[in-house]
Amino acid sequence: MGRSVRKGKFITIEGPDGAGKTTQAGKLVEFLKSKGKRVIATREPGGTALGEQLRKILLDPEGSPVSSAEALIYAACRAQLLEKMVIPALKEGFIVICDRFVDSSLAYQGYARGIGINRILQLNKWVIGTYWPDLTILLDIDPAESLKRLTGGKDRLEGETLEFHQKVREGYMKVKEMFPERIKVIDASLSVKEVFEKIVEELEKTGILE
Amino acid sequence: MGRSVRKGKFITIEGPDGAGKTTQAGKLVEFLKSKGKRVIATREPGGTALGEQLRKILLDPEGSPVSSAEALIYAACRAQLLEKMVIPALKEGFIVICDRFVDSSLAYQGYARGIGINRILQLNKWVIGTYWPDLTILLDIDPAESLKRLTGGKDRLEGETLEFHQKVREGYMKVKEMFPERIKVIDASLSVKEVFEKIVEELEKTGILE
Repeated sequence: MGRSVRKGKFITIEGPDGAGKTTQAGKLVEFLKSKGKRVIATREPGGTALGEQLRKILLDPEGSPVSSAEALIYAACRAQLLEKMVIPALKEGFIVICDRFVDSSLAYQGYARGIGINRILQLNKWVIGTYWPDLTILLDIDPAESLKRLTGGKDRLEGETLEFHQKVREGYMKVKEMFPERIKVIDASLSVKEVFEKIVEELEKTGILE
Repeated sequence: MGRSVRKGKFITIEGPDGAGKTTQAGKLVEFLKSKGKRVIATREPGGTALGEQLRKILLDPEGSPVSSAEALIYAACRAQLLEKMVIPALKEGFIVICDRFVDSSLAYQGYARGIGINRILQLNKWVIGTYWPDLTILLDIDPAESLKRLTGGKDRLEGETLEFHQKVREGYMKVKEMFPERIKVIDASLSVKEVFEKIVEELEKTGILE
């Protein structure tokens, strides 16, 4: 199942919580539909029945997976989502928009949690095969700003959390350096409208709107 | 965490259901304890709280994981078992006996389910690192015989199941060819006592009893 049978396009949206991924994904779906495109939107983890079950385990303190087991469970969610939803939709010519995908694993688990980006990349190559995204929009924002958006105040901005989120941002930038053709960074501190215009520009450059 | 810090020995027991793995593992634990060895016995999947949770998902028809997701979930169980139980025990000098391990994945998922032994091996190299078993006892038996032991009759011996179990047996033999030094095949159609004597012979050859 290589690129030869991929008629659709696969777009992923990345960035920290509070960067506006869900908002921009929603706007993008509407925009593409208005252009007559067939679009499917999904998200990770979850997006399938198995993914939802596994997501509960990831959140359950009873299980407390070690870091490699956690990476494998995320990878299982991804494998299920790819095979059950993304690949069939791409074969049918849909544009698939996914809120978080492989780069979340690389930035959070590979870099911020210290497993190693290359180690997580190796695992994900096994999972993804040839189905890498055609385009990844990385919504970049100072964690101090995105955390403020999430909480509506500074009360949850304690040192450790901010430091972790700064590591996630650094991780995303390292991943961007590894995949400069695929990943496009957009300043998510701009207005919703401005961010969306920049996303559309990137889609135009990539030829996805043709 | 390489072999340099592994003071104990890691023994796995493989073969189909009905081959006598649990019986022989129990006898082996008692025998090694009688020789003054410190022994820990465990099993896959399961053996940890996370493993038990994941095992439920593997058995739940609601989830129905695709084959690669299933392989990743088994791999997550294995990663958890290794890091939480096997590696700490080996570092403390214990003999660890595990009922099923990587070769089950290679034979069942890699070969019998058709994912490919090498593809499953690649994933498991990621998981296992340097912690491959020192010795693997493969209890080999004609599936027609082992299925009879399980059911006490021929009623469940319908064609498809027997064919699948024959593929598992073939798969185990292919895995044995890939790891001839580590995997020792024992004829499991012999009596419990005879099989156990042959297991002890293999342990002697490997120097585990010294």
